[in-house]
Amino acid sequence: MKKCLGKVPGLAVILVGQRRDSLTYVHNKIIACEEVGMKSVVTELPTDCADADVQNAVMRFNKDPSIHGILVQLPLPQHLDEEKILDALCLEKDVDGFHPLNMGNLALRGREPLFTPCTPKACIELLIRSGVQIMGKKAARHHATVTIVHAFTENPEQITSEADIVVSAAGVPSLVRGNWIKSGATVIDVGTSPVEDPSCEDGYRLVGDVCFEEVIKVASVITPVPGGVGPMTVTMLLVNTLDSAKRMLNFT
Amino acid sequence: MKKCLGKVPGLAVILVGQRRDSLTYVHNKIIACEEVGMKSVVTELPTDCADADVQNAVMRFNKDPSIHGILVQLPLPQHLDEEKILDALCLEKDVDGFHPLNMGNLALRGREPLFTPCTPKACIELLIRSGVQIMGKKAARHHATVTIVHAFTENPEQITSEADIVVSAAGVPSLVRGNWIKSGATVIDVGTSPVEDPSCEDGYRLVGDVCFEEVIKVASVITPVPGGVGPMTVTMLLVNTLDSAKRMLNFT
Repeated sequence: MKKCLGKVPGLAVILVGQRRDSLTYVHNKIIACEEVGMKSVVTELPTDCADADVQNAVMRFNKDPSIHGILVQLPLPQHLDEEKILDALCLEKDVDGFHPLNMGNLALRGREPLFTPCTPKACIELLIRSGVQIMGKKAARHHATVTIVHAFTENPEQITSEADIVVSAAGVPSLVRGNWIKSGATVIDVGTSPVEDPSCEDGYRLVGDVCFEEVIKVASVITPVPGGVGPMTVTMLLVNTLDSAKRMLNFT
Repeated sequence: MKKCLGKVPGLAVILVGQRRDSLTYVHNKIIACEEVGMKSVVTELPTDCADADVQNAVMRFNKDPSIHGILVQLPLPQHLDEEKILDALCLEKDVDGFHPLNMGNLALRGREPLFTPCTPKACIELLIRSGVQIMGKKAARHHATVTIVHAFTENPEQITSEADIVVSAAGVPSLVRGNWIKSGATVIDVGTSPVEDPSCEDGYRLVGDVCFEEVIKVASVITPVPGGVGPMTVTMLLVNTLDSAKRMLNFT
């Protein structure tokens, strides 16, 4: 793209406030862009900024032809209206795939969203690259909230212990224990909770939902936290940004 | 609403072609409107009509202030572009809840769609009215297609036989047998397949996914086909149309 068009894909990140984990995530995304030769821009706003400040930042990037993907780093401070801010994001640059129209097209059979959300896309990519067969397998996925289409129970370990693939995204450290997992299962840990740890450089470390030391003895494939789903999610963000740039520049 | 505003909610149905089951469904909807004092209009188009003909019908109803809900009876003939036609439907009148933006807002936590699709809404309503507790229960739902968040297996009966609530929407007559169901479970049969039957007045009858005679011996609660989810789905369509009219007329 650079060679043919003299242009590179551009990613814009909007960061509100100084959450340490958000700072880390944004930093990782910028580094990843640099590594692959993409342009990246970060707009930092103070914690006490107004909805309009964030929306203005979004709209500036909406109009900027050098930007092909816009990411608002979540969570936003409580006083901000996340829905209103995300709705301001132009659909064609929604590389996080969180716009309701993208989400609806993802949910509807026979429709194609412009972007697939990065984290689920990362999980699927990890399964495919590890040669894990998905079709026909039993898979369990843990959410912090009950959803109507899910197999849910007061004894989640009963379901996970029958699953060939367990994807945990609860945000509860050490929730998934060794006895929750069937021998030989594939375990994907999406949970990333920052836990205070004065011995760490940043004063905290990230922990997953899965009790790694226990589960690694039982599972055949497992993703660690950090270093598992996270980096692949960043990769998928870059893939979405690249796809977006190709689409906008008519480059195939 | 009629008393205060001199207006009633209006439902428009667009029917393409002469599928017998579609004719029945549309007929039921019109009858239901009459029973509750709603206005209903049906536009019938020939099987060989063009995308533009259906879109024009949709757009006419989009503009008509006496219409608060528009329903395109599915399935459409194969040569028509269902996606393009449904996208023409104005979001505020999408009482079927199939617009991708409605679907996305339904899928996203903390967002509210303008309309919830009638059939799932009917299933939930049936459960609530029957006093079946949903939260914390094991529920299985069968689709004709595999979806990523589902527990899916080559032996579906293994999962259904552990479920407290089974919702079947496969469109496969007699798929769900008695030995698929746990004693005392709640079974909701969404499947409705037209089956040729010369002994019936219309030359066909509707059958569900569930082998009713077998399953009724095991389940504690069960919905028949016809006469179960279908009428409740029509009711939910009227509820959505009423909600739409209230919203448009600022009537609370």
